[in-house]
Amino acid sequence: MTRRAGKPPPRTGGKPDRRDVGQQVEGRRAVRELLVAGTRRVHDLWLSADAENAPILDEIADLARDANVKVRRVPGIEVDRKARTETPQGVVAFAAPLRTFELDDVLAVPAAFVVAVEGVTDPQNLGAVLRSAEALGASAAVLPRHRAVGITPAVTKAAAGAIEHLPIAFVSGIPNALEQAKRAGVWCVGLDASGDTSIFDVAVADQALVLVLGAEGRGLTRLARTRCDVVASIPMQGHVESLNVSAAAAIACAAIARSRAASA
Amino acid sequence: MTRRAGKPPPRTGGKPDRRDVGQQVEGRRAVRELLVAGTRRVHDLWLSADAENAPILDEIADLARDANVKVRRVPGIEVDRKARTETPQGVVAFAAPLRTFELDDVLAVPAAFVVAVEGVTDPQNLGAVLRSAEALGASAAVLPRHRAVGITPAVTKAAAGAIEHLPIAFVSGIPNALEQAKRAGVWCVGLDASGDTSIFDVAVADQALVLVLGAEGRGLTRLARTRCDVVASIPMQGHVESLNVSAAAAIACAAIARSRAASA
Repeated sequence: MTRRAGKPPPRTGGKPDRRDVGQQVEGRRAVRELLVAGTRRVHDLWLSADAENAPILDEIADLARDANVKVRRVPGIEVDRKARTETPQGVVAFAAPLRTFELDDVLAVPAAFVVAVEGVTDPQNLGAVLRSAEALGASAAVLPRHRAVGITPAVTKAAAGAIEHLPIAFVSGIPNALEQAKRAGVWCVGLDASGDTSIFDVAVADQALVLVLGAEGRGLTRLARTRCDVVASIPMQGHVESLNVSAAAAIACAAIARSRAASA
Repeated sequence: MTRRAGKPPPRTGGKPDRRDVGQQVEGRRAVRELLVAGTRRVHDLWLSADAENAPILDEIADLARDANVKVRRVPGIEVDRKARTETPQGVVAFAAPLRTFELDDVLAVPAAFVVAVEGVTDPQNLGAVLRSAEALGASAAVLPRHRAVGITPAVTKAAAGAIEHLPIAFVSGIPNALEQAKRAGVWCVGLDASGDTSIFDVAVADQALVLVLGAEGRGLTRLARTRCDVVASIPMQGHVESLNVSAAAAIACAAIARSRAASA
């Protein structure tokens, strides 16, 4: 990369090429965590006035008031109308877009544990992957800027607050990002049913690494697979040949975390 | 339990108290596996005539013809109308109800690895749990007959064929089933955020056991927890305090399978 005076440097991070970068947050856990984390401005909060026995909605209202967020207590049907998921659980928040990160920065974290997601198109799966990754100790996520889900309301809801804590870098393509990781001295560990190493036995698990997850059904692209230093798989035993991508991601993150704990 | 002449013995297994026992199967993987497994009669198959680039639909049509199943090639919109999930992926099958099993029988399997699910109300989560359990080596599942999801079309779809292979026992309550397991010499291992043993370090993992999973958000009921010999947890490291129940189930099943493989 060369820089020319007067021209901004080329950016590998930045925002996805669509408008969804977590601005609309739906679901009780997700909105509660948005307010608790306090890492971005919340403009507006729509709260169902007719939800019964929902102490978490009262807690959300209190958190919002403490943060000087405008709260609209409206009939549940109006919350549903504002919502872009089917079950907003009585609460929708509008916030500043998520702060996104440069790939170089998430790779430079000591003992980085970066989860790169290639081509997951189901927002619930993507949200669930981000939730598991954050909960199990990942230091960041890398998502493709194009041809993938943005951080839509369905993603914010399924992520259950994880996006408020897990740094996300958007990249133009996962294979290029893996090249960049290797240049930065970060291992690339692919997860694919074809892998001949068990995900529980990845020798470099305790070092800086990118865990690469492929799309539902298709697994890793050929190009991403060839860029991986290790291709690992989850040992399977049943008739059903594959796991849901979010189940596979959870197991892989837990396995990496387990190996790190064992070698610490 | 006492038996009286002329009265059938009380049954702990049997079908749930609702009509859904897997009769309506939706989604490509689920229907394909229904036909491949061939363990129950398929009455009727509705297949979208206008899905493009879907070799799996052609494969499903071939499998159905080989099994003498009546195939209706109809406009996709008619498949959608028959469907009870939102995205049947162009295929809905109607089949005989799943064969269900008695609890005693699933407990009697040598080195049984039974997954008991308490109070999971989201059908996608339940289906995903069954899919992961089967893929990771569980020998059976135990589900409450009342106050839970039946094997609805959404469950059949998310299970992606696992229900054709994983024996399921319906019981009147999970705590009673755990008592019965203990009497049968089967360990009860609960999974709960409060557990003080790591799920990766369960000493009895290689013995006959029931892995008990609680509901989304609430975890195990008090009663189920007190009936467990071990309460284990998944080591967490992030800000988000919990995993989705299907992610937790996948990790727990993989951890048990891993321990079994290591001690084999």
